[in-house]
Amino acid sequence: MQQLLAVDWGSSSLRGALLDSQGRVLKERSFPRGILTVSPGDFATVFEACFAHWTGAAGTFCLISGMAGSKQGWLEAPYCACPAGFDEVASHLAWIRAGRIAIVPGLSCEHEGIPDVMRGEETQVFGALQLLGLQDGLLILPGTHSKWVHVAGGRIRDFSTSMTGEFYALLRQHSLLARSLPDTDGELDGEAFDEGVALALRGAGLLQTAFSVRTLSLFGRMAASRLPSYLSGLVIGEEIRTHALPAGMPVVLIGAEQLTERYQRALAQRQAVVRRVGAEATWRGLWALAQTIHPSWDP
Amino acid sequence: MQQLLAVDWGSSSLRGALLDSQGRVLKERSFPRGILTVSPGDFATVFEACFAHWTGAAGTFCLISGMAGSKQGWLEAPYCACPAGFDEVASHLAWIRAGRIAIVPGLSCEHEGIPDVMRGEETQVFGALQLLGLQDGLLILPGTHSKWVHVAGGRIRDFSTSMTGEFYALLRQHSLLARSLPDTDGELDGEAFDEGVALALRGAGLLQTAFSVRTLSLFGRMAASRLPSYLSGLVIGEEIRTHALPAGMPVVLIGAEQLTERYQRALAQRQAVVRRVGAEATWRGLWALAQTIHPSWDP
Repeated sequence: MQQLLAVDWGSSSLRGALLDSQGRVLKERSFPRGILTVSPGDFATVFEACFAHWTGAAGTFCLISGMAGSKQGWLEAPYCACPAGFDEVASHLAWIRAGRIAIVPGLSCEHEGIPDVMRGEETQVFGALQLLGLQDGLLILPGTHSKWVHVAGGRIRDFSTSMTGEFYALLRQHSLLARSLPDTDGELDGEAFDEGVALALRGAGLLQTAFSVRTLSLFGRMAASRLPSYLSGLVIGEEIRTHALPAGMPVVLIGAEQLTERYQRALAQRQAVVRRVGAEATWRGLWALAQTIHPSWDP
Repeated sequence: MQQLLAVDWGSSSLRGALLDSQGRVLKERSFPRGILTVSPGDFATVFEACFAHWTGAAGTFCLISGMAGSKQGWLEAPYCACPAGFDEVASHLAWIRAGRIAIVPGLSCEHEGIPDVMRGEETQVFGALQLLGLQDGLLILPGTHSKWVHVAGGRIRDFSTSMTGEFYALLRQHSLLARSLPDTDGELDGEAFDEGVALALRGAGLLQTAFSVRTLSLFGRMAASRLPSYLSGLVIGEEIRTHALPAGMPVVLIGAEQLTERYQRALAQRQAVVRRVGAEATWRGLWALAQTIHPSWDP
């Protein structure tokens, strides 16, 4: 097995890593060239400009996950319907250059007639399962649009999206509450965060609990500097309140350390046993997928 | 009893009505001079400019409700704590000019250490109770910050705020969902609205259901022109889902016709029996308060 160029091409950033045949990361680079910055038809040029010096080596296979496979991306890789595992995803790659560059499809599922979708997270989930040696469990990928993913027998059975990060940004920047908050978030205030989580967990919903940011400020019961952490706790707590936590099953948090730490802290109020995996999940997932399709790409 | 100048001075608008001794509206005017447009110290000037020709008459008493009594308003009228009725509110007026111009205080209540507040809605509630001859019930005042108000024995026992209108505006204008929506809302699409309400009522929360605007659009399952009505149904349905509806008790909706019609339509999915009251609730409430304090202002 030769080298793998693993690429995570999302809406707002483009990251790549060169992996050897054992899955070890040799080099890593990041560019502010998310798909929203690339005009249709320019994807090949941007890709070459960023990674040509890596793809030049004979036997380098490239696998790309993320929004590059969306309608607005490089080449549309239609969603695979859940339940779906390595095999389904590996057999539905969208090939940019036969045997050399491929895009990993996202997944879709449906609840009572309402579709849900992910692109990129499926690869992180597969990577985390490999890294942790798991076949079953609940995996949470916090973010602008958080995903709660249920895995059984190594396959993604089902998932749901919560617009948690986006709601935080909307309330933080554009709502009436913004007037009570300082200009920048500052360090996390753990106690204020915990209070927000606690209220969300016992509350009736974010439409109501969010107003407490205003009233706590109005009555001088919480200093302005603590309110961003409190609001963060409210929205993350709301996400947790509105999902079932399976008893006795490990919960895996995947994502940047700062964010998964917050979720771990919030989930502690629900007595969840948590394991955390970082950005390495993406590289590991792409490497695992590349191994599955190995016969077709090893020159 | 002489004339009453009833004034509703909110954040974004200033409305006034001249009422005779029987509570009949003689004249009505509205100005784009909400308190957010008035500099501290300029309130008297703005008030005179708008209403001097009405207040000139001998024996005209003026009663003002709304944000004019907030810290950022003309004169702070500290909140009355719930439970509170006519008498409590009438005895806590903030007097601008003794016996001539007064501001009605807002109300506060508290749930598990979290305060809640209203300013202006208490007056609408008192007015609606008078107009409908009610002493008990649940009154809902939809809006940017909706209020659900529980009344017992003619007194406001308790209430809660939902940031429903503001969440709609945030999602409509500033979120990722805005990209799927047309520039203007257009007429209400009743069926799309009902679908939004239905999903919200059976859903797990707005953080999750909001994402359906994106996926229904992505999969071509709902035309863009219908999505604003659908999103409106989602947020209003979420407000209804997160409140208890007391069985067998009338639900009174107070507000502009277009909005209370939507709420009535949404509440029908919960089999609620609804009565509606419009803007006249404010004038009636101020008139009723003026009557309560009559001895002190009748010249």
